[in-house]
Amino acid sequence: VSGPVTAGFSGGGGLAAFPVPGLPEIRRGDDLAALIAARVPLAPGDVVVLAQKVVSKAEGAVVRLADVDPSPRAVALAERLGKDARQVEVVLRESVEVVRAERGVLITRTAHGFVCANAGVDASNADEGTVVCLPADPDASARAIRAGLPGRPAVVITDSFGRAWRHGQCDVAIGVAGLVALDDHAGRLDAGGRPLQATAIAVADEVAAAADLVRSKAGGEPVVVVRGVHRFVTSEDGPGAASLVRPPAEDLFP
Amino acid sequence: VSGPVTAGFSGGGGLAAFPVPGLPEIRRGDDLAALIAARVPLAPGDVVVLAQKVVSKAEGAVVRLADVDPSPRAVALAERLGKDARQVEVVLRESVEVVRAERGVLITRTAHGFVCANAGVDASNADEGTVVCLPADPDASARAIRAGLPGRPAVVITDSFGRAWRHGQCDVAIGVAGLVALDDHAGRLDAGGRPLQATAIAVADEVAAAADLVRSKAGGEPVVVVRGVHRFVTSEDGPGAASLVRPPAEDLFP
Repeated sequence: VSGPVTAGFSGGGGLAAFPVPGLPEIRRGDDLAALIAARVPLAPGDVVVLAQKVVSKAEGAVVRLADVDPSPRAVALAERLGKDARQVEVVLRESVEVVRAERGVLITRTAHGFVCANAGVDASNADEGTVVCLPADPDASARAIRAGLPGRPAVVITDSFGRAWRHGQCDVAIGVAGLVALDDHAGRLDAGGRPLQATAIAVADEVAAAADLVRSKAGGEPVVVVRGVHRFVTSEDGPGAASLVRPPAEDLFP
Repeated sequence: VSGPVTAGFSGGGGLAAFPVPGLPEIRRGDDLAALIAARVPLAPGDVVVLAQKVVSKAEGAVVRLADVDPSPRAVALAERLGKDARQVEVVLRESVEVVRAERGVLITRTAHGFVCANAGVDASNADEGTVVCLPADPDASARAIRAGLPGRPAVVITDSFGRAWRHGQCDVAIGVAGLVALDDHAGRLDAGGRPLQATAIAVADEVAAAADLVRSKAGGEPVVVVRGVHRFVTSEDGPGAASLVRPPAEDLFP
């Protein structure tokens, strides 16, 4: 288990993360698994972490704003928020519910169940006049990429989400294959034999956050390998990032 | 720059994290900086990440439940939520506002401004009959620990917080010294020259999450060294985790 950056890293109780070097600009139809496999040796316990943007581009989840005819609702929302009505229209098409629309911020619940700004629709690192949407089924995207990677590493697809009550964004997992996304501690005990109060750790979100630290936001390093979390890597693809979505009926912050 | 686990790790564009081995059970008055410095070689670009529990224990932020006389409000809340009234009393004393009290969950805003379950008051990994509170001023705690560490590494104090809309907890930063907690991208451009939509990254929260991945939740490994994020490490202590707190007036989810 050694990569270009972490040669000599023993992995005993530690974690390492490094970017996959030299990936080209990703276009519709590109085989991400093949592009990654050609650039980095992968082992079964590794996790390959991909920024959503490259997955969406490879899948063609890109909309030309010139082709978008905004609805009256989108026009009204865009006017109120100071946004492009065509972009708001794309956001509404990707959403099942507007959660907040205030102070220039549009937070919605996407069809996948994610609550985030602009339904994840983003113009940065996109071609002029286009916006990039989230993959239609990010867990399926993760499974497909995993199937193409030698050594069956886990795959996590990430996006940067804002949070209630805290400034700044953190990367979180929107698609997962082959990783325990949610590590449920219910029933486990602490060192003194008392029940652990933290009952579930969002492992895939913590992997997403770790990977983000080795990336430059300018978009040049969209794929990162995380090594040393093999205890969470599974042979089955598993329930994916869907297991991280809290259903609206259970949520205290609708 | 080499540690016991990551010997040979070059750090060029990559990240490594490993637990500090062999720490004793922490008691009131223990010198955490000295205990850490005796167990791991530290370099200026390193980040030392400590679980809140050991910092609180060293500072004596521990309450014996037998000494707590719950107020009528605490008794009523505890009854409604199925909690210990003395523990609820401690939570209320640590809080400036109850944000939600439903379905067995008590979410408050602490005096520091953090919104989290039970104001961070926790009985796991605590002595029988006691609960551990958050440090009174976690940024000051981080600065004090930093001052005692050779090589002036950055210091991050973490706790596990739940999130709105997502299952599971992630570790976040509640105290920071010597690290850019919030990396503000406002005005920066993407690879194509367009403004980046994600304007600020919660670097300290991502460091906290990365560190949590190398810890066992049973509490045996409360301190982790994160290496490779030296571009965010500063000589000044800086504004700390306070810069991650979104004031209630700015928040869309009161």
